[in-house]
Amino acid sequence: MSLVVDNIAELITNDPELGAGPLGIVTDASVVMDGGTVLSVGPAGAQAERRIDAGGRCVLPGFVDSHTHLVFAGDRSEEFTRRMAGEPYDGGGIQVTTNASREAGREALRSALARRLVEVHRAGTTTVEIKSGYGLSVDSEAELTSLAAEVSSESTFLGAHLIPGEYQGRADEYVDLVCGPMLEAVRGHVRWIDAFCETGAFDAGQSRAVLEAGRRAGLGLRLHANQLGHGPGVQLGVELGCASVDHCTYLSDDDIEALAASDTVATFLPATDFSTRQPYPNARRAIDAGVKVAIASNCNPGSSYTTSLSFCIALAVRDMHMTIDEALAAVTTGGAAALRRNDVGRISVGGPAHLTILDAPSRHHLAYRPGVPLIWRTLGADYRLPSADEKPTTEPE
Amino acid sequence: MSLVVDNIAELITNDPELGAGPLGIVTDASVVMDGGTVLSVGPAGAQAERRIDAGGRCVLPGFVDSHTHLVFAGDRSEEFTRRMAGEPYDGGGIQVTTNASREAGREALRSALARRLVEVHRAGTTTVEIKSGYGLSVDSEAELTSLAAEVSSESTFLGAHLIPGEYQGRADEYVDLVCGPMLEAVRGHVRWIDAFCETGAFDAGQSRAVLEAGRRAGLGLRLHANQLGHGPGVQLGVELGCASVDHCTYLSDDDIEALAASDTVATFLPATDFSTRQPYPNARRAIDAGVKVAIASNCNPGSSYTTSLSFCIALAVRDMHMTIDEALAAVTTGGAAALRRNDVGRISVGGPAHLTILDAPSRHHLAYRPGVPLIWRTLGADYRLPSADEKPTTEPE
Repeated sequence: MSLVVDNIAELITNDPELGAGPLGIVTDASVVMDGGTVLSVGPAGAQAERRIDAGGRCVLPGFVDSHTHLVFAGDRSEEFTRRMAGEPYDGGGIQVTTNASREAGREALRSALARRLVEVHRAGTTTVEIKSGYGLSVDSEAELTSLAAEVSSESTFLGAHLIPGEYQGRADEYVDLVCGPMLEAVRGHVRWIDAFCETGAFDAGQSRAVLEAGRRAGLGLRLHANQLGHGPGVQLGVELGCASVDHCTYLSDDDIEALAASDTVATFLPATDFSTRQPYPNARRAIDAGVKVAIASNCNPGSSYTTSLSFCIALAVRDMHMTIDEALAAVTTGGAAALRRNDVGRISVGGPAHLTILDAPSRHHLAYRPGVPLIWRTLGADYRLPSADEKPTTEPE
Repeated sequence: MSLVVDNIAELITNDPELGAGPLGIVTDASVVMDGGTVLSVGPAGAQAERRIDAGGRCVLPGFVDSHTHLVFAGDRSEEFTRRMAGEPYDGGGIQVTTNASREAGREALRSALARRLVEVHRAGTTTVEIKSGYGLSVDSEAELTSLAAEVSSESTFLGAHLIPGEYQGRADEYVDLVCGPMLEAVRGHVRWIDAFCETGAFDAGQSRAVLEAGRRAGLGLRLHANQLGHGPGVQLGVELGCASVDHCTYLSDDDIEALAASDTVATFLPATDFSTRQPYPNARRAIDAGVKVAIASNCNPGSSYTTSLSFCIALAVRDMHMTIDEALAAVTTGGAAALRRNDVGRISVGGPAHLTILDAPSRHHLAYRPGVPLIWRTLGADYRLPSADEKPTTEPE
């Protein structure tokens, strides 16, 4: 049945051929869709079998969240509180979530993931990448990646998230496990492979070994890099042709130059810098040098337990000196580029009908009204939401 | 009809006699209420005619937002965007909202206020102070204060918000107007008088004249002070016995000493510092010196267009180094103290049944999950929400 979203004060298409400027903005617009596909974009007043009156609201392409860790069990609010009291963040808490996730059982993990996807949808996000990385054993990583694959085609194997307790002092053995039996067990479930290249996690040689094994297995490459300090991650990511290097809180001049000359996207995760009290990345310097950027939530229970890309946009504008238009592009076309996609993150005729309707007349309100839940409706999604009969329980975590 | 909120994982009462620690925390609790009054607080399983299953959630006293400017017309998203691009904030935009509010008409203002109160309630706030200050003429201030008084007993006359355009160069004449005919026109509508003591607004002598006139008219005193720089406001507020001095972004040692020795609350407005890219106040220094503190939203269209005290809490923890318990107290008992109230901001037997239920098992999640709409239900309110037949339109602003 065809549907029109009508009476749109400001429509962001991200298609310069459809509207004004790089964001392709159309005012007083309507969007007609059918069967999950956009049929037309035009002036208000288009006809269809059903109608949503946007009532002067702003409509955006659904957000593309290109970096999350949504499959896990347990809660680390106490670690967060200790950190806010001064304890430094070093990523070591990943083991806590790993223990909880290994013990949780498939049904509990599936239910927690479904609950989080409902929250993701309410936050206006219609495409979501989901990493494993809290299993860190062959069986457990296979379980997490298969759960991610049940709901999203953008699933990522992150066996190289942390060296698990039972491999302490035997990092190279663990890397062999990741590159061998673990990769073999997960490869049917994932599109991407990722590694955490950071002091305390995996060094450049180990990260390279993991990504190269992933490439041989036919997977796309991405990398966590330069979160807690300067390091070799960004250069490695560019050299290996990663779709994205994520965090990029610390970027040297050489890193910026390498990124700008490449197709690798720099994905900033400002909610993580917020929740770990790190400095924010110097986005201006990167953008002005021509680096392609994205912003993602990094939703995870340790360093960034938020699904809100609206919140990330407000931080990007306030603390990273991005314009609202740059921040909005970073969570739509930027996120899509970080996933090497060009179908999502835009509203185009023949493309997927993924729309986020703000309870506000313009995109500016995403930064102007921080903390206010501005998502009025989210239409469509690239991932599988729970159906009515499998609604996740309302139990909070 | 009696109602029990049952199966509460963590209940914050703010009554040390009811529960553990200064926040009076009860675990596995229930709260029974009837006719808007709390009848009992005890272990889970209490009986009543109706039941809300909190399902392991956390229940707090409804937030007390002791500083807002909710009655206005118009939008200043463009000013916000210019500011984020580098234009400094000096408060001058108040005139823009004044022009829009003078022209809007009573019904449009009432409807906008009602719409905002719905948002305030969804944000978990059950007591809200509302200032005038966008009229700045006798008739228009009378209109704004009467609209505020229609919905909240915590209404404040802020004729001394800015010297309006037609009085430029005649500040003392305007102050005479505020202290004379304007005060006379509004005094029946308001509990409080307030002034904006800041370079570019009102100096100490003018602010003193306004507050002293208010006191003679039987009003309680409050003051905007030390927002944009050091100044005489805090000392003046303490000297005059203000219930609260608000902003306090810049505090000298003498200011801290004066506050600590007084009953005047220092009310921080961190969302304003966020939205104006000011530094955050040094809350640790104030708290450690014994200053009583509150946190409020300062919801207004210029410098802080948010109703979310959850967002303010996250900023207070991350950027003002307050503990979650201090921040939570600041938006409950702190806000109440800033309004010289001790009935609200706590859950006590015989007190008002104003409860906020988080979609989370503990208070820590308010800071741990920034940007996520965590308010599951808000019960009760000290202000008048629109009834079903006067539901505000869904038109966004």
